[in-house]
Amino acid sequence: MKPKKIKISKVGTPQIPSSLKNKEWVHFISSENDVVAQLHKKNLLSEIEKGRPEFFELAGPREKIYFNPEELKCGIVTCGGLCPGINDVIRELVIELWQGYGVKQIEGFRYGYRGLAKADEIKPIKINPELVDSIHRDGGTMLSSSRGPQDEDKMIDTLVNRGIGVLFIVGGDGTMKGAHSIAGKIKERGLAISVVGIPKTIDNDISFVKNSFGFETSVQAAADIIDSAHTEAKGAPNCIGLVKLMGRTSGFIASHTALANRNVNYCLLPEVPFKMKGKDGFLQILKERIKRKQHAVIVAAEGAGQDLMRKNMRKKSKKGQKDKSGNEKLKDIGIYLKDELEDFFKKEEIEINIKYFDPSYIIRSIPANAMDSLYCVQLAQNAVHAALSGRTDMLISKWNAHYIHLPIEMVTKGRKKVNSDGRLWRTVMEATGQPYSMFKSKD
Amino acid sequence: MKPKKIKISKVGTPQIPSSLKNKEWVHFISSENDVVAQLHKKNLLSEIEKGRPEFFELAGPREKIYFNPEELKCGIVTCGGLCPGINDVIRELVIELWQGYGVKQIEGFRYGYRGLAKADEIKPIKINPELVDSIHRDGGTMLSSSRGPQDEDKMIDTLVNRGIGVLFIVGGDGTMKGAHSIAGKIKERGLAISVVGIPKTIDNDISFVKNSFGFETSVQAAADIIDSAHTEAKGAPNCIGLVKLMGRTSGFIASHTALANRNVNYCLLPEVPFKMKGKDGFLQILKERIKRKQHAVIVAAEGAGQDLMRKNMRKKSKKGQKDKSGNEKLKDIGIYLKDELEDFFKKEEIEINIKYFDPSYIIRSIPANAMDSLYCVQLAQNAVHAALSGRTDMLISKWNAHYIHLPIEMVTKGRKKVNSDGRLWRTVMEATGQPYSMFKSKD
Amino acid sequence: MKPKKIKISKVGTPQIPSSLKNKEWVHFISSENDVVAQLHKKNLLSEIEKGRPEFFELAGPREKIYFNPEELKCGIVTCGGLCPGINDVIRELVIELWQGYGVKQIEGFRYGYRGLAKADEIKPIKINPELVDSIHRDGGTMLSSSRGPQDEDKMIDTLVNRGIGVLFIVGGDGTMKGAHSIAGKIKERGLAISVVGIPKTIDNDISFVKNSFGFETSVQAAADIIDSAHTEAKGAPNCIGLVKLMGRTSGFIASHTALANRNVNYCLLPEVPFKMKGKDGFLQILKERIKRKQHAVIVAAEGAGQDLMRKNMRKKSKKGQKDKSGNEKLKDIGIYLKDELEDFFKKEEIEINIKYFDPSYIIRSIPANAMDSLYCVQLAQNAVHAALSGRTDMLISKWNAHYIHLPIEMVTKGRKKVNSDGRLWRTVMEATGQPYSMFKSKD
Amino acid sequence: MKPKKIKISKVGTPQIPSSLKNKEWVHFISSENDVVAQLHKKNLLSEIEKGRPEFFELAGPREKIYFNPEELKCGIVTCGGLCPGINDVIRELVIELWQGYGVKQIEGFRYGYRGLAKADEIKPIKINPELVDSIHRDGGTMLSSSRGPQDEDKMIDTLVNRGIGVLFIVGGDGTMKGAHSIAGKIKERGLAISVVGIPKTIDNDISFVKNSFGFETSVQAAADIIDSAHTEAKGAPNCIGLVKLMGRTSGFIASHTALANRNVNYCLLPEVPFKMKGKDGFLQILKERIKRKQHAVIVAAEGAGQDLMRKNMRKKSKKGQKDKSGNEKLKDIGIYLKDELEDFFKKEEIEINIKYFDPSYIIRSIPANAMDSLYCVQLAQNAVHAALSGRTDMLISKWNAHYIHLPIEMVTKGRKKVNSDGRLWRTVMEATGQPYSMFKSKD
Repeated sequence: MKPKKIKISKVGTPQIPSSLKNKEWVHFISSENDVVAQLHKKNLLSEIEKGRPEFFELAGPREKIYFNPEELKCGIVTCGGLCPGINDVIRELVIELWQGYGVKQIEGFRYGYRGLAKADEIKPIKINPELVDSIHRDGGTMLSSSRGPQDEDKMIDTLVNRGIGVLFIVGGDGTMKGAHSIAGKIKERGLAISVVGIPKTIDNDISFVKNSFGFETSVQAAADIIDSAHTEAKGAPNCIGLVKLMGRTSGFIASHTALANRNVNYCLLPEVPFKMKGKDGFLQILKERIKRKQHAVIVAAEGAGQDLMRKNMRKKSKKGQKDKSGNEKLKDIGIYLKDELEDFFKKEEIEINIKYFDPSYIIRSIPANAMDSLYCVQLAQNAVHAALSGRTDMLISKWNAHYIHLPIEMVTKGRKKVNSDGRLWRTVMEATGQPYSMFKSKD
Repeated sequence: MKPKKIKISKVGTPQIPSSLKNKEWVHFISSENDVVAQLHKKNLLSEIEKGRPEFFELAGPREKIYFNPEELKCGIVTCGGLCPGINDVIRELVIELWQGYGVKQIEGFRYGYRGLAKADEIKPIKINPELVDSIHRDGGTMLSSSRGPQDEDKMIDTLVNRGIGVLFIVGGDGTMKGAHSIAGKIKERGLAISVVGIPKTIDNDISFVKNSFGFETSVQAAADIIDSAHTEAKGAPNCIGLVKLMGRTSGFIASHTALANRNVNYCLLPEVPFKMKGKDGFLQILKERIKRKQHAVIVAAEGAGQDLMRKNMRKKSKKGQKDKSGNEKLKDIGIYLKDELEDFFKKEEIEINIKYFDPSYIIRSIPANAMDSLYCVQLAQNAVHAALSGRTDMLISKWNAHYIHLPIEMVTKGRKKVNSDGRLWRTVMEATGQPYSMFKSKD
Repeated sequence: MKPKKIKISKVGTPQIPSSLKNKEWVHFISSENDVVAQLHKKNLLSEIEKGRPEFFELAGPREKIYFNPEELKCGIVTCGGLCPGINDVIRELVIELWQGYGVKQIEGFRYGYRGLAKADEIKPIKINPELVDSIHRDGGTMLSSSRGPQDEDKMIDTLVNRGIGVLFIVGGDGTMKGAHSIAGKIKERGLAISVVGIPKTIDNDISFVKNSFGFETSVQAAADIIDSAHTEAKGAPNCIGLVKLMGRTSGFIASHTALANRNVNYCLLPEVPFKMKGKDGFLQILKERIKRKQHAVIVAAEGAGQDLMRKNMRKKSKKGQKDKSGNEKLKDIGIYLKDELEDFFKKEEIEINIKYFDPSYIIRSIPANAMDSLYCVQLAQNAVHAALSGRTDMLISKWNAHYIHLPIEMVTKGRKKVNSDGRLWRTVMEATGQPYSMFKSKD
Repeated sequence: MKPKKIKISKVGTPQIPSSLKNKEWVHFISSENDVVAQLHKKNLLSEIEKGRPEFFELAGPREKIYFNPEELKCGIVTCGGLCPGINDVIRELVIELWQGYGVKQIEGFRYGYRGLAKADEIKPIKINPELVDSIHRDGGTMLSSSRGPQDEDKMIDTLVNRGIGVLFIVGGDGTMKGAHSIAGKIKERGLAISVVGIPKTIDNDISFVKNSFGFETSVQAAADIIDSAHTEAKGAPNCIGLVKLMGRTSGFIASHTALANRNVNYCLLPEVPFKMKGKDGFLQILKERIKRKQHAVIVAAEGAGQDLMRKNMRKKSKKGQKDKSGNEKLKDIGIYLKDELEDFFKKEEIEINIKYFDPSYIIRSIPANAMDSLYCVQLAQNAVHAALSGRTDMLISKWNAHYIHLPIEMVTKGRKKVNSDGRLWRTVMEATGQPYSMFKSKD
């Protein structure tokens, strides 16, 4: 019985014996047989009944490679917002290429796709292991980044003109849509240029990627800020610590932070709309807590409560406004809550103190912690293995503790969200003790 | 088609409707159908061919519970060495019991099994949510711990005398052997006392437990110390930073640390014996590096090189010496390496500096980081769900991102080790660049 | 020659031999001769010519004390905003009173002066060493705090009714004004109640107090945020990291942070008004840097640029608005700068990215670092020594590395500010490289 | 009345107008009048009676400089053991020279005096601001270091051959002796080469230097380890956390750590010999505590108890052994205490657990914290000001909150020690509660 594998594109057939140093200890992956089941819970049974389940290709070094390391020139580009660990990824790409395979021509394109489209103006950097030796101690990306799309043909021209055989792209949802499109056009042009992605998102909202790199580091930073909010809340009479955290369309950071720091009393996500007013509304529930406990800690993801604000501010609304990456500009839930709370308690004639925390970029522009570093190292090593084997239009993901290959297309079809019926949200409800009734019913 | 489930014991049939607060949002787990496949890689296919794969029971709240929360009295005991997160586990057990189910009789047995066997002498503590409110900021365990077995009948007598219905045991390999034996004797005596384990090990060496809680925190602490060792190594001529890390029989901490902090040049584990002398030996290889680079960083797990030392120190050897938990006393690989290196380079007439780091307990007696806290919260919540449902002689584990129930017996049959043929070790070889030849061949 | 000492009030003559434990090693301070010169630079010489310089009384244990420790009851109250180390101070007051002198009646008034005025409603807490054992791991104050004055006679009534002999007051400028007034009324009433202050201010703006406790910890936290701002600034094209830091009327935090983290390019303080527009204005200077370097980091203290905003927003201005502590409500320099910069560069047709950081309370609600803890320990010990000796209407300060007694009146006459002609500001100019011309001349 | 100033040598008369950028805001220091009194406590009065007190020269920029920045070439060398902040000092020397004065020829000598003596073999590095931009994020020194003296004439030859006009030396006691000697020989040879020191010592034992740079950072790291020791001590029955800290001849780190982390019960220093045995001895006192409290935390400075060990191990003693810097090799107080405690409690038939912590270099090879960075910045700026003005054979120190010039000779006459009669030690006694009787009387 052969596994039903999700197919990965290649620019050509790998025929060169791998140049990996220390080949004695390398256990090469068999693309035929080394696979990881997509399903693993009870739905696996129904798949079995239907025939057999689907499998992902396992990442890792291949015995035969496609590109000749002595001739190959690789490019690296980092796009979109910052996130802990990008420098770890760059560093390991370089080390694995150079020391592992013997690829000694590596270029870094600066300022994301912009630098790739305008390489004449924004000169690429030659990268070697020495240059990247300690970049992982700094947050951010040594290559800088930018947002938004660029002319894809110009980008491919740059690759052709500079003789790039493999392009590594570190980026999120939007970047990956671009990468898929670039890979498509490369194919149309009949070029043997491999495009390999490493998925990056501070919000942890890329489909088919369990936890994105840097996510743990950000949750740690956010959890520390909850400590501050809790300290402030307990430090004055009727005091409310209000924290806004990143999370435009998905509340993974807010949820995980509320679980990691158990001092959160209310956790508001974009995925689970809540009621503000009325007997069951958040204001009323908060009032009761303040009377009972004299303090409270609220965490709101950036994208929470957008429905409430749209209604509220219809007149001022700049509907449809979008930022450079094409994301809709959000109303500020933090300021909204602060204002509404102040008004409400004033009317109720209850004196309160609100301490507002907007850590913004603080939680994302820091260096990766140890586990995220380790994760980046493995993503990068596997990206190099995949690229050298000629794979393209794909990215590296971690699925149930295994590194796998994914067609880029699979991850760009929609953003991952917190399932309001799922285990994560239920655990948050359990951990905060916030009442079910304050959330809107789904019908 | 029904899943082939790994069976979990129960003290009786759950018939009481769950007292979980906020039942509206709880998605109760169906013990019949909510399962997690044990296998997930290619071997899953052969299982399917043979009929169907084995499944673990998914952890989580059950619709019917066995114990009446209003009457139930629970006990908590923490055994063995410290590890980041024990206080997080205790705290969440208490919060989930008290606030989730309404169990308001909770006792903590102090000093591990010793306090359970000698409860008259070492008085148990009454625990409530207020008492545990901020214990997670401290490392260690608020209940203290101890090593080694105690009279099991006496321990069961304590449970009976104090009216304990559920005993939560936080501990490692040895502790779990004891827990299994206690559960067995409870069954023999016909008692309805549930024994639920939460696996704890700083070395991450418990079978069927992917990463044990506190492990990430320790790796972070160890990775920081590698920074120090690297700084020292580069700070003087021909300088070697030598770091000994915990890991008696398994090198998970050392391996993960070497991956998380890429400045490690040699990583020595108990599982992969290395040659000290000769052309291929470690000393010769190190000499070449020192000549080439003037510095080196070595990480050795506690249990590495025991074969070399046994040979070397046969005369002084205190063979068979064991500590209180029954673990064999190890020779000190750190001191051994330090001495051997000094001798060797003296003979070679090469001046070197050795900076020796033995962080010992530093990496384990710290508070859990955010992700470990979150992990502890979920282990504890699931332990409470399992216990209330009457399950016994089992522990909570995480398997491929899902919390599951495991019979204690399964985890006590052997310690998990780094597989010298597996992906982890290969990645360490790749990351350090240490040569294959310095390790002993397996035949 | 006798020193010309600055006089400290007493509630009575100390006649009881000190009850300090371990008297063998205590070197009692002679109030007559143990003194610290107020001046120490060249102006000391002119003082010498005039006769002799002024001296402060050295803090420390006295051989004779005024209060009988067996009968004495002490109160502790913490007022105003939070600051790292308040819990360290509370803890050490309790330990020194209890274990040092044998005072075993200690009460904590909750919620600052409010709890002191309304002790019937807000019950004071009995405090002992066990209760405070690990409070220093948490930021904030275990007693909570509040802002603003209260009826002084009611507060004194509380002291009388509860039999308090010594009141320790931890607070800032406003709090100390209150303390001085309370001490005055106590004297008028002929009561033997000692009032001893420990100066607290996150802004480091209390006169005659070199660095206030918690200040270093806050600067460390702020310096870490500059790293984030710098990382963001370098992570996108023409990107500006803009950080607002605490500092309403004095820019000590901003200045020290700019020196501790040398990535700050512009540092704006309340004390040194700057020009926004024109050839020499900040906007023009920033534009030149952005063209040259493509990134910049700006740090602005809360109170900076108020003159610019007042002019700018005259219409919207809520002049004279004050918060509960009587401080004038400030316009938001962060938002102002963000808006002005965006407008300016839009007009100049230069695309920029602004990453705005408002860490607000993040830098103050954290636990004290090691040196601040140590500092708090010594302030508290000396406060207890002073109080037991019957001193009153005074506070403990550190002057040139020595702990001294100061009449409260001396510190309430004006806030300390960064001297725009002094060494600190010059070093900031040197470190940032910001041009002299962008600041307004003083005449 | 003119101040009685401590004289500083010069290589020649400064006659060139300062090239300092932004001269408008620079307040040049008047060498005549800007002074800091050496004394400041009561002994100041007797000095006044005798005539007038002695003063130090205030550090800072001078209106006239000696060296022509356009022609000047500067060298930097770092010697002795590592310490947090060396890279901060190097970085700021370079920035102040380059950006402040316009000196653009800067060389770094590698591996301390060794690299200075053997510059042909160990090539110096050309340094510019870009190269040092982020070195302060790493601990250690980018120039590496070495211990021990080198041929002084060869070092001066290197300076002459390479055209160095100013040599900045970062180092400790021994290094400064060398620097003084080098400066002397330079004078003998009639050369106009300035030698300016920045004092460095992890042990904080340099005379006339209040707190050396990096000291606070180390105390913070050590205080964190006390938390671990305390956690372990409370985590097992009768458990003793034993921590050895740096401090060969002076116990400043141990003392400050005991004050910063109030969980230390016994603090042992080189300066205050203690009794081990007998009724009053440490063992007996510890036994009583263990019985009473079941746990204890002991901190011992490296150099503590040497008298006990010498007596104890007379036979094995390698008396007179010295390391490369000429320091006597110490017996290991940590191992000694561990062994003695185990023996003693075995004889007393009391079961104990000893958790031994030897953090060794962990506390010194880390990056400087914010306040230490700030301190390094100011030391380096002032060192550049002093050097440019032609001063030589001197170092920068901080005296009562002012940066001053000190003749190197003054600091090399003896090491600073904890005064067993002084305030620091008394506060440690107070904070630990350890009994006076366990220490040896001084006669």
